[in-house]
Amino acid sequence: MTAERTEIHIAFEALELLLKEIFIHNGVSCSTADILAANCAGCERDGAISHGIFRIPGYLASLKTGWVDGHAVAEVSSVSPSFIRIDARNGFAQAALAAAAKDIDTAVARTGIAVVATRNSHHFSALWPDVEPFARRGLLAITFVNGLANVVPHGGHTPVYGTNPVAFATPIAGADPLVVDQATSVMANGEVRLHALANRPLPPGTGVDRAGNPSTDPHQVLEGGALNTFGGYKGSSIALMVELMAGALTGGQLSFENDFGDCIGAQTPKAGQLLIVIDPDRGGNFGFSRRVALLCDRLREAGQERLPGKRRYESRLNASQLGIPILEEDLRYLETLADHNAFVS
Amino acid sequence: MTAERTEIHIAFEALELLLKEIFIHNGVSCSTADILAANCAGCERDGAISHGIFRIPGYLASLKTGWVDGHAVAEVSSVSPSFIRIDARNGFAQAALAAAAKDIDTAVARTGIAVVATRNSHHFSALWPDVEPFARRGLLAITFVNGLANVVPHGGHTPVYGTNPVAFATPIAGADPLVVDQATSVMANGEVRLHALANRPLPPGTGVDRAGNPSTDPHQVLEGGALNTFGGYKGSSIALMVELMAGALTGGQLSFENDFGDCIGAQTPKAGQLLIVIDPDRGGNFGFSRRVALLCDRLREAGQERLPGKRRYESRLNASQLGIPILEEDLRYLETLADHNAFVS
Repeated sequence: MTAERTEIHIAFEALELLLKEIFIHNGVSCSTADILAANCAGCERDGAISHGIFRIPGYLASLKTGWVDGHAVAEVSSVSPSFIRIDARNGFAQAALAAAAKDIDTAVARTGIAVVATRNSHHFSALWPDVEPFARRGLLAITFVNGLANVVPHGGHTPVYGTNPVAFATPIAGADPLVVDQATSVMANGEVRLHALANRPLPPGTGVDRAGNPSTDPHQVLEGGALNTFGGYKGSSIALMVELMAGALTGGQLSFENDFGDCIGAQTPKAGQLLIVIDPDRGGNFGFSRRVALLCDRLREAGQERLPGKRRYESRLNASQLGIPILEEDLRYLETLADHNAFVS
Repeated sequence: MTAERTEIHIAFEALELLLKEIFIHNGVSCSTADILAANCAGCERDGAISHGIFRIPGYLASLKTGWVDGHAVAEVSSVSPSFIRIDARNGFAQAALAAAAKDIDTAVARTGIAVVATRNSHHFSALWPDVEPFARRGLLAITFVNGLANVVPHGGHTPVYGTNPVAFATPIAGADPLVVDQATSVMANGEVRLHALANRPLPPGTGVDRAGNPSTDPHQVLEGGALNTFGGYKGSSIALMVELMAGALTGGQLSFENDFGDCIGAQTPKAGQLLIVIDPDRGGNFGFSRRVALLCDRLREAGQERLPGKRRYESRLNASQLGIPILEEDLRYLETLADHNAFVS
């Protein structure tokens, strides 16, 4: 038992390769496996462990049951010089976004803005990997994703929204980008599942049980219960905005329309994603990133200790020096999935 | 005293005309007076009284001291087919937006999207009047405004943000548009000022005093203190996003850069506004407004009693039948401002 709980370290590239093998061995095309593996290994590396290897069984269950198509080829349509629509064809959202990369670049270069509306997509990861790369190139990016209905609107008793995260990223002069990624629920779903695994109670106000009563039991929240939106009615309105942008505007499904049917064990949400990329310097507004740096300085002076995303960068730096910390038993498990396609739901 | 506190009713058009006269008599051009009067009378009509006639002394103080230019003519630049930059030239944001109306229409017609970045502008009203008209034409609109630094970031002790509201509006099939307008502070500043006028304590958690300690005294919050962001660190990140979008991306001032200098009594914030207008049906996504209607139905079924904006529509309907309720003393006061240019700060 002691041996099994041993923490070891693995290089990013090694974890990425292992995850790629797992995805390929479980029905994902090579190009999509590349994208998902880099994404998932990146989450593990950055300490976003609720979106790291912890999610692999969920990915595989969705693939195994046919709920998601690992071989989907997204259809990208530039419906205007600035507006891109993507039909992900029931594939993963990250692959759809990658398929539109050139069109996004073209739109931003030509018009200073790209609106990317993806439908029929499964987004089962963190959102920051979708926006951070744009900020590294001097662009501002903001994105919204809806999901599985497991969040009650403020004042309500039945789940309507997904955890409906919002992410945005901007360059900061002389520093890593500022990257925010947060669910509009009190807690992200992956965090609740980590609490459930550890049998750790949730903070009061996090969610409700099946009957709509407040509950701090992560199992009750996950099994027929639901999460609350953050910040009362105002947070609920932000969740609504995300649902409208990511679900309705994209032509995708609304969170409450997910119905797994015979796909027992499937976990990925079939929903939509809206991404807006803006060149902040378009039109003579030079020096945007220096202005952001000034704002960040002021926030630190005002006493805000951590700017959003700082913890991820710290984990990333540590991982680049020491490797990614991972339990030996988890690594062995991943190896079985890669070698033998041995996953049983 | 009893006579003075009498509530009377005034027709929308009569209030609008009176307010227009006040603005013109206090240094506002005729076209801008039209816009501000319709906006302010609309707030009063819709029960958004913290942005109604209550704001007139603030408008006039800013005008009287030269802090804002009531005769400013905004410079509108279409920097791409979808991207419009506006220099409001130290005038009111609503007049700047009106000046760009044709360009916005052209951008949305051509590309399905308009990004409107306004700088050097004063936004002293509610945000919903800026977005609701787009939704009435079948468009989705979202806007962000920064302001005067009177909100502390989560975990901080000094104000950095304005109340930094977000508003968005979408059409709903068969109903008035869905319109959200909310500050990212726990409470809007106008609400705090209404509490101060009434000597009514604030709910716990609303703000801090000059020393950064929690306070429920609206006077302490207004005089050297500050408001908290809603929803803890997540709400604080939304306030940050607004500051970046409305302040930095537009090329405008950041909230903490407002310095009234010799303009004693001026109240309007010199800041920026970002507006994004999207044609949700562009690119074959027909039926958006019916999808929104479906979502709204589900929210009501889930137990959410009031959809955002419902109260405003109720007030508007009442006012259309009975007139706008207003205190007789307030009306007399407004009349003095219109007739005699008699305002003393």
